[in-house]
Formats: sequence, structure tokens, C-alpha cells
Amino acid sequence: MRAQLRIGIAGYGNLGRGVEAALNHTPDMSLAAVFSRRPAEQVHTLRPDTPVLAWDELEAHRDAVDVLILCGGSRVDLPVQSPRLAEWFCLVDSFDTHAKIPEHFAAVDAVAGQSHKTALISAGWDPGLFSVARVLGEAIIPQGDTHTFWGRGLSQGHSDAVRRVPGVAAAAQYTVPSESAMATVRAGERPNLTVADMHTRECFVVLEPGADEAAVAEAIVTMPHYFEPYDTVVNFISAEEFAQDHSAMPHGGFVIRSGVSHENTPQSLEFGLTLGSNPEFTASVLVAYARAVHRLNARGHFGAVTVLDVPPGLLHPADASTLRSAIL
Amino acid sequence: MRAQLRIGIAGYGNLGRGVEAALNHTPDMSLAAVFSRRPAEQVHTLRPDTPVLAWDELEAHRDAVDVLILCGGSRVDLPVQSPRLAEWFCLVDSFDTHAKIPEHFAAVDAVAGQSHKTALISAGWDPGLFSVARVLGEAIIPQGDTHTFWGRGLSQGHSDAVRRVPGVAAAAQYTVPSESAMATVRAGERPNLTVADMHTRECFVVLEPGADEAAVAEAIVTMPHYFEPYDTVVNFISAEEFAQDHSAMPHGGFVIRSGVSHENTPQSLEFGLTLGSNPEFTASVLVAYARAVHRLNARGHFGAVTVLDVPPGLLHPADASTLRSAIL
Repeated sequence: MRAQLRIGIAGYGNLGRGVEAALNHTPDMSLAAVFSRRPAEQVHTLRPDTPVLAWDELEAHRDAVDVLILCGGSRVDLPVQSPRLAEWFCLVDSFDTHAKIPEHFAAVDAVAGQSHKTALISAGWDPGLFSVARVLGEAIIPQGDTHTFWGRGLSQGHSDAVRRVPGVAAAAQYTVPSESAMATVRAGERPNLTVADMHTRECFVVLEPGADEAAVAEAIVTMPHYFEPYDTVVNFISAEEFAQDHSAMPHGGFVIRSGVSHENTPQSLEFGLTLGSNPEFTASVLVAYARAVHRLNARGHFGAVTVLDVPPGLLHPADASTLRSAIL
Repeated sequence: MRAQLRIGIAGYGNLGRGVEAALNHTPDMSLAAVFSRRPAEQVHTLRPDTPVLAWDELEAHRDAVDVLILCGGSRVDLPVQSPRLAEWFCLVDSFDTHAKIPEHFAAVDAVAGQSHKTALISAGWDPGLFSVARVLGEAIIPQGDTHTFWGRGLSQGHSDAVRRVPGVAAAAQYTVPSESAMATVRAGERPNLTVADMHTRECFVVLEPGADEAAVAEAIVTMPHYFEPYDTVVNFISAEEFAQDHSAMPHGGFVIRSGVSHENTPQSLEFGLTLGSNPEFTASVLVAYARAVHRLNARGHFGAVTVLDVPPGLLHPADASTLRSAIL
């Protein structure tokens, strides 16, 4: 049996916990340690025997970790951490600020190229698997349009916006792909749709005592940018119902490429995800790409890479010959 | 502007014609020539100016073609042609006899490795894009099951079987994914399904004059292997209706990976195709992989490869930096 790939987790929130959970299903990998900026006694890992080390222990463990999975946020953490840690580690991050990807890639590439590490940025499902689907769709159906639908899924940003409305005690907001827009796109009608045409929004709100339903609903549906351009439904529920039905983090979506080949023959390709837990699935994606990063590094592929640079076979624990006979 | 990639087409049936059509939508590629074993005057290309050359002109044109796309059949043509032509050309084939892929790979690899060519075998949608989806699904949702549904689509082999029934003048057979089986799989119920549980069969038959409907239908639905294990519907139609509605070659299907992450959280991934023309879409896939083959060869990646070895970004005409900023 080959040696297990030793994974490090840098940052332990929902995503880091998802990585720890995902490693229970990957016999070819082991968890070396969780690195956290919080005191170890405040970090409650799923397995009591998971080593929790201080953030400034990272450099000392550079030879004990084959691939480091960064589980911090895209706004503050990753722009600093990924370029710095690529000095010592092959790594995977989930940087998802689309507009800043080129800048982040350049910063990480400069370090990883020098240190002969391989650093995969922006893994996950969007950016990530959805990016792969978009590239396949454009490459194979060049005469066509790509539509990305998100949901049904919990949106953290929109839930936060609802919670800021006076009178709201608790709130969850779900982004829902519009069935009629999806039907139009699937039928190959190549409509010109805005994001607001393609999605509706569903809010589940617990009111504070004495708050006015009508006023709260009005404040939500008229909120500029967040809700005003969308069809929004506001449901008022009890605190008990909220706790029972709205503590999970489901998400998902669809990439649909519809177009034509010779003389208007319709052709369409669709990739969809239905996720019971967004952070657990994202973590599973990061873990599979960690396997690929290790293999790319062994091939001498140094520097920053993205999901678009990774041969699909490298994600799978089996070797290429087994994949050809068993799965191709 | 970069020089266009010069494509050769070896074999001109439905698939070769599809490649010629697909090249109308790829400004980065040009069609160097069609090579055929038939006399040139019997080969009716879509564009009258497409050069049609004899098969034994292939070697003489080794420097005029960057990637050769082989459009012959998997039973007789490709097992001989791909290993032989890998001596002179980077190539793509659509070898689809799943059980013989390892043998075909080895034969092509031995030649292409020596000649420093890159030869991608078994491109198309299954094997091909569906293989990519299966590998992604297994790698990212390791605790789960993969189901592949085919259709709704015209099956050449089953249509031929119906045509051999006495009394049948013309026939088209469509393989149809079972809606109830798909619903079960999508719901993550992880059922244990046979191919026959997952599909139904629809036949459209034109009778010969005087033939007996009931006898023909009985002969079809009881045909061992082909129809007996399936729910089969036989529709009798006129020759006019047949000509009008059943001359296209639609196909498609779905790969669904359903499983669980931590503590039975359901996770599911789905890749689907809805194709107005099976050969035109398959041709579009071969053309995109021809682009990747050329780039792999330029990187010094010699020998046989499959879709599992190809980074998705190499399929797309844009360069990596553009893809990162525009599509990731």
C-alpha cells in the first residue's frame, strides 16, 4: 500500500470541519493537523484525536504536510495566507471573489513558482466545478449561450441583510432558480435573462415580539439590489420552526449550455448540483483537488493552477490504467 | 493572429461530415483535407471546396495536418487505423468498445510514444464526457453510487434488430430513460437497478404490405437480450410519417452521482446531454479534443491519452489567462 497523503487544514470553521469530515472517506489520505489562530481549547474538532496546532506552528510542520487546505475567507484571509503559505506548502484554496482571481493567481504564482510548490486557487463548485462545466460547454458547443442558475440554496449574504431589518429576530434567505427561466433555457430558446429574471428569493423570518409583519415584509421586498429586482416571498415562522427547518446549509445550481451545431441542430449540455450541505460539499471538492495538486507537483508542475489546469483523472484515487478499464 | 490548427478527417460518414460541419464554428482551425477509401467523386462533402484525397495519400500529408480526426468504426477500422496512423499523426479517435479500451490504448501508446505523437483515444460523450462526469462524481462523492442513463435516443443496433423481424419495412428504436428510475436516483435512494430497470424502449415500425401487426409486435417485444428484459412499446406508422419524423439521430443521457457526506448529508451531482444529432455532437467533442491534443503535444506529452488526462482549459480556444478572468 502506498503511503497516505498527509493533509493539513488551515483554519477551522464550517469549511475546515467539512474537510475533516471528508477525510473520513478517503483511505489514501490522513489528517496531519488542524492549524488555527484560536487557542486549541476553543477548537472543537469532530474527532477528539485530531491534533490542533497554533497558526505559527505552520512553518515548523512544512515537512509533515503534503498538501495544506486553506479554509479561511476570501475577503480578508486568503489574499494574505495563500501567497505566504505557498512558500512552504503545496496548497488548495477556495478563493471565490471572481473579479480578483487574476490578481490572486499572480500573487500565489510568483511565490509557488519560486518555491517549487503547486498551489491550486479557487477550488469549490463556483468557481470550481461550474467553471469546468462552462469551459466544456463553450468549447464543445461554440455557437450557444451559457446560463448559470444558483440554488435552491441558503445565501449567507442575503440572510444577513434580512437580519438587519428592524423587527427581525432570525432569518434565512433561499435563492431559488426560476422554473420558467430554466425551462426556456433548456428548450434552447437562448433568452436574454438577467440574474433577477433567473432567480426568485424566499425568506423565512422570525419576528421580534411586537414587530409588524407588513412593515417588515415591505422593508425586505423593497430593499435595493438585494431584493427589489427579484420576486421575493417572505414567510413568517416561529422560532421553533426556524430552529428545526433552517439550520442546514443546502445549496446547488445548474450550468446549462444550449446552442446549435450544423444547420441549427439543437445541442445542450447541463451540469447540476443538489447539495445537502454547501460547506461539506465544497470541502469534498477541495480534498479531491488536494490529491491532484500532489500529483501535479510530483510531475514537476510548479506554480499557481486552477481547476481548468487539472486532468480529471488526477482527482480520483485510482491510477490511470484502472480508470481506463473500470470507468472510462 | 496565431496560425490556424490544420485538421485532417480520416473517413467520411456521418461522423466525418459532423467534423467538417463543426469546423465551421472554430475560427482557430482549418480543414486541410478529407481522406477516404472511396473514390473522391463518391464523397460528397458539405463544402464543395473541401479537398478529398485518397487514403494512401495520408503519409504524404503528414506535415500538412496538425491533428488527424479518425472517423471510422470501432469494430473494424479504428483497431487497425489508430495504431498505424499514430506513426505519422497526432490524432483523436472515438473508439467506443468499452471492454477493449485497455488493449486499444496499449497498441496506440506503443506507436505514439515512439513517434513523439499525442493520440487521444475514446473521445466522444460515452466514453468521453460521461467518463469525465463519472470520475468527478466518484472522486468528490466517494460514498455514493453512479448511475448512467442513456436517451432519449436513437439506437442503431436496436433499430437494426427490429428491421430483421419478418414483415418490417423500416424501423427506428429509441432508448428512453425511465422517469421513475431517474426520480429514485435523484432522490438519493441509491437503488440497485439493472440497465433494463433504468430504460424503456420505443419502436416506430413501418410494416411491409400484408404483414400482421400483432405478430410483428410480439416478435419484437419477446426478442431476447434486445427487448425481452425491457418495457417496450411498438408503434406502427406510415412510410410518410417515418420519413418525416424519424430521420434525425437524437440522443443524450444523464450521469447521476448520489451519495452522502458527513453523517448522511445528501449530496448529488448530475451531468446531462440533450442532443439533436448524436454524430454532430460527437464530432464537436472530437474537434475540441483535437485542440487539446495539439497543445499536449507542444508540451511534450507524447503517447496515448484519454479524456481523463486532459485539463479542461486546453479544450477551449482562449488561453489560460483569459479563461481565468472571463469564465472561472
